[in-house]
Amino acid sequence: MAVYTPITPEQAAAFLTRYDLGAYAAHEGIVQGVSNSNFHLFTDRGRFILTLFEPRRVQAGDLPFFFSFANHLAEKGVACPAVFPDRDGNLFSELAGRPAAILEFMDGASVAMDALTPNHCAQAGTLSARMHLAAADFIPTRENTEGMERWGRMADLVQSYADDFEPGLTRILREELEFLQRSWPQDLQRGAVHADIFPDNVFFQDGTLCAVIDFYFSCTDAYAFDLSVTLNAWCFGRGDAFDPARGRAFLGAYQAVRPLAEAEKGALRVLCRGSAFRTLLSRLEERHNHEDGTLMQPHDPGAYLRRLRFHRENDVAAFL
Amino acid sequence: MAVYTPITPEQAAAFLTRYDLGAYAAHEGIVQGVSNSNFHLFTDRGRFILTLFEPRRVQAGDLPFFFSFANHLAEKGVACPAVFPDRDGNLFSELAGRPAAILEFMDGASVAMDALTPNHCAQAGTLSARMHLAAADFIPTRENTEGMERWGRMADLVQSYADDFEPGLTRILREELEFLQRSWPQDLQRGAVHADIFPDNVFFQDGTLCAVIDFYFSCTDAYAFDLSVTLNAWCFGRGDAFDPARGRAFLGAYQAVRPLAEAEKGALRVLCRGSAFRTLLSRLEERHNHEDGTLMQPHDPGAYLRRLRFHRENDVAAFL
Repeated sequence: MAVYTPITPEQAAAFLTRYDLGAYAAHEGIVQGVSNSNFHLFTDRGRFILTLFEPRRVQAGDLPFFFSFANHLAEKGVACPAVFPDRDGNLFSELAGRPAAILEFMDGASVAMDALTPNHCAQAGTLSARMHLAAADFIPTRENTEGMERWGRMADLVQSYADDFEPGLTRILREELEFLQRSWPQDLQRGAVHADIFPDNVFFQDGTLCAVIDFYFSCTDAYAFDLSVTLNAWCFGRGDAFDPARGRAFLGAYQAVRPLAEAEKGALRVLCRGSAFRTLLSRLEERHNHEDGTLMQPHDPGAYLRRLRFHRENDVAAFL
Repeated sequence: MAVYTPITPEQAAAFLTRYDLGAYAAHEGIVQGVSNSNFHLFTDRGRFILTLFEPRRVQAGDLPFFFSFANHLAEKGVACPAVFPDRDGNLFSELAGRPAAILEFMDGASVAMDALTPNHCAQAGTLSARMHLAAADFIPTRENTEGMERWGRMADLVQSYADDFEPGLTRILREELEFLQRSWPQDLQRGAVHADIFPDNVFFQDGTLCAVIDFYFSCTDAYAFDLSVTLNAWCFGRGDAFDPARGRAFLGAYQAVRPLAEAEKGALRVLCRGSAFRTLLSRLEERHNHEDGTLMQPHDPGAYLRRLRFHRENDVAAFL
């Protein structure tokens, strides 16, 4: 996949005329981001983010859920980018053959994985808990298309090349899938969750968390599953080893806002194994399908294989 | 004008199928509100507000401004109802011949004018100041179609019947219009403002302000003009006399969040005269066009004539 769908100044300018956001001045591609094509868009009245949704990653029919969930959270005090409606009240329309939207530009920048401190992780924990509480009265729903029900098919897909990454991995994946299908908790509290609170999707300014972006995996799932995704993304440090200081800071800050139920604590280890497993599968797939010569480096599956091994041997609930 | 455009359960149910908000259960008209037709809408998943925009009051082309301004404020922590996009990403579409939208139901209730305490007014002042600060980086603009430029035409319209309300009023209106056109401040700080923060549009719960609704007059104007509208709406008590305790509480709370510039303080009296004048004109018009037998009582022009007289004789800046 190319880094982004290129658009010309003429295309961007014509698209802007649908909006009350000023006249086109310039645009430039944002290299980060694998799911969609993002551009900085400058007009004579300000700067914006222009996003083209790549059809292989995002279904146009899901965009209303993503946008209204972000708006709902914003209203509860979670800073996330608003989407601008055009003059007809549409939140997106076609540009270069893709659904496209103009979003608010958010100040701040993400912190690289290796530079995360326990304080950053604590703020991510607070954010996660506040998002879970704020989701309680959000009404629309969306199935988690990356959820446990789909992992069997994903595992089938990667089994022909998993052993090329590490001999014996196919067997480990099989065992893990069986374990997860047998042990997956069913009755945890559920609601709309971001499902992708990775450090790249969270902005800080002067050390303070100021925005969460990229709601394009958000869906209805167990809050504690979302928590496990975030924990795996934030609490492993150099060499992808679990960092107890980060883990304690993250979980402590989460619980200070939304104390986990006993069932959630009991399920945390399985959930962490599941979310590590899911990301491992998708990274194996991404690596296999990666075309040389594109700018993006594929994500390292090894990082999530190490997380999975950690959770097979340890229960993070010990750090609660 | 009727209290609301009636819609049948079949119409409401068909409209709901555009959305991911559950199946129709019931709806009922909300008697409050003069501009639009509002309904409580119940589905098997929750309750909502369904609004039909009456074409004589609201232009469909302005709805994107209203909705995106509310969303922008929400993101900055001002609680106001989010609008739900339908499955195609449209914020509104046609129902019973009118643009119609589904908005979030907000808890709380407005406090009757006579029951307002200085504490309520202080909260309204804080709200107003926070909205003005939050508007600073909102980019879309909308002309104030009820602004000073339009008052000449409004005054022409009511002059044939103003003396029926109170002999000599036509002359007072002429004088006032000339004064305002001569004295209107030009260089005050401007931005998107609600322009209609009346007590009916603000909800409290257990004495705490919890929501501001009805963004259908919002526009780009001077922040201090918006402040004067709110002051006139909140700080006059029984007999429509200025209530110094309310006034001090309101202005003090405002300034604690957004201290007024010297130019704004100096202009406050003229602005208050202007906003009292504008509401007086529109109430004279409303009273004249009122059809007997409709449920709505027309608003009393006298209440705003008394406010105008107060500001002609006093400078509220003395209460800063």
